[in-house]
Amino acid sequence: MSRFYIGVDIGGTEVKTALVDENDKAIFAKNIPTESEKGYKYTINMIAKQVNELLELNKLSISSINSIGIGIPGLTDGKSKVYKAPNISWIDIDISKEMDRHFPNTKVYIANDACVAALAEHHFGAIKGARNAVMITLGTGVGGGVIINEKLYTGNSGIASEIGHLIVGENFYNCNCGNNGCLETYCSATAIIKHAQRLFVDSPCSKIIDMTDSRPEKITAKIIFDAYKENDLMAKIIVKRFVTYLSIGIINLINVYDPEVFILGGGVSKAYDLFIDELEKEVNDRLSFKNAPRGKIVRAKLGNDAGAIGAAMLGLYM
Amino acid sequence: MSRFYIGVDIGGTEVKTALVDENDKAIFAKNIPTESEKGYKYTINMIAKQVNELLELNKLSISSINSIGIGIPGLTDGKSKVYKAPNISWIDIDISKEMDRHFPNTKVYIANDACVAALAEHHFGAIKGARNAVMITLGTGVGGGVIINEKLYTGNSGIASEIGHLIVGENFYNCNCGNNGCLETYCSATAIIKHAQRLFVDSPCSKIIDMTDSRPEKITAKIIFDAYKENDLMAKIIVKRFVTYLSIGIINLINVYDPEVFILGGGVSKAYDLFIDELEKEVNDRLSFKNAPRGKIVRAKLGNDAGAIGAAMLGLYM
Repeated sequence: MSRFYIGVDIGGTEVKTALVDENDKAIFAKNIPTESEKGYKYTINMIAKQVNELLELNKLSISSINSIGIGIPGLTDGKSKVYKAPNISWIDIDISKEMDRHFPNTKVYIANDACVAALAEHHFGAIKGARNAVMITLGTGVGGGVIINEKLYTGNSGIASEIGHLIVGENFYNCNCGNNGCLETYCSATAIIKHAQRLFVDSPCSKIIDMTDSRPEKITAKIIFDAYKENDLMAKIIVKRFVTYLSIGIINLINVYDPEVFILGGGVSKAYDLFIDELEKEVNDRLSFKNAPRGKIVRAKLGNDAGAIGAAMLGLYM
Repeated sequence: MSRFYIGVDIGGTEVKTALVDENDKAIFAKNIPTESEKGYKYTINMIAKQVNELLELNKLSISSINSIGIGIPGLTDGKSKVYKAPNISWIDIDISKEMDRHFPNTKVYIANDACVAALAEHHFGAIKGARNAVMITLGTGVGGGVIINEKLYTGNSGIASEIGHLIVGENFYNCNCGNNGCLETYCSATAIIKHAQRLFVDSPCSKIIDMTDSRPEKITAKIIFDAYKENDLMAKIIVKRFVTYLSIGIINLINVYDPEVFILGGGVSKAYDLFIDELEKEVNDRLSFKNAPRGKIVRAKLGNDAGAIGAAMLGLYM
């Protein structure tokens, strides 16, 4: 009977909420500001209000809702607790407990934003129907979402698929997590910007210098890939290193998850067409077992709305 | 009705076969030599003969056998094919096809030896009943067996859990797989012997020199750990490096599988008591997320018979 799912995508600045029906049709509420500076209870109160308004507008009662799924910009235990969501200053917060005060009889699921993005892509997008799949989000950080046997896999404490923190080498700066050599420190937008800033002074002829008026703090991932398109040597060095470590990350993920398909999302994946050929080549060169077929690599298909829809899908995938 | 399982453990020199009943009671056949030099068809013929004799002795017909599971000292597709088993010179061999000629109506499963060891430990041993668990075998190489949702997880091409080939650093020699920095090149018996051989000439006062009559080719993992027990400096350097990279490997496995429990097996795990405190400490120091509980680390419990029993369990776990 009750086949409606609600998905909430909490971002650094806005919260997006969607009602998804059993035919996968999504109706979005008007976004609300996250206003994390007012504390997590305030934000959750506002989310509850938004959910109630969405139900009212669609003439539904809460009892017709199968579950509410929440995507978090941070680390969760995959059940009820947020360990850490730095962008919104949430630390050790029991979301289910808070939601319970508003919706005592409704099941609430939480997962990080890369996981819910993977669910949306699995339900509607580029990895639809894959039995085992790994999503890699290349954004400010590197995130992961892992589908095993067509379910979201979050492990024992919820931190399975934290693939940005795979240690894959020895790097010139430490990761926020305290370790050295995390995939995130090679393959995130932050990582390639840091690499560019490091090369800055020694590359006076680079187009990147012109494009930033000689100000390293103005470097963006987009500028690096724009220079790469114009065959800029410094950009080539940066993209080469990014591709090398992404290929090592993918090799590691083949040797642990061996998925049917990898899907690349996040801001840096906008440059997919520029690096995919080189990436395919480096992955093939590094395969530990050349005669075992490997998962293909595809690009994420869904845009900004995927977060809320994926979060709604938590009720189906957990 | 038919609740008997047959398990075959193919080793470099011997094949061990067991009949396991529904009460988990195992009856072993007399071991046979592998004689891999005679070709895979010969070995499989001998295995078929051994299985038939075991059935006869126990007054069972093949129809009372649920399945035959085979543990392979090498890489398999988790279904029917051996990609590569160097010790017995098997390359790209379809085991199921061969077995089918002898037992056309019996389901045959194959998996590598670390996977079947994990199944035995899950069914009878140190990780009994764990929902998600990762076995790390520290032997001549480093192998892995992964239990997800109480099933063996082998991935899309059967190579999931090849954790010995996780790239975790930059090493002074390349792995057999062609890559540099594989976990196996830091944490196998071979790896610590190679490290000792490298330090040999510069450590004239080491006990390891005495214990090997100054002949580096005589170094074994046991000698290194024996010297470690006697506070030998060179042995301490070797064990320290082994522990450091094993801790990085475990951190990586936490960030992908996040299991309830890790289980260490293989020859090097005989020194478990000597390195576990240091390993626990380094794993804790390197945890990416200090407030997320991590899987505990235990030692394998079963001995040599685990292979055949674990192989029999493939019928339950696949």
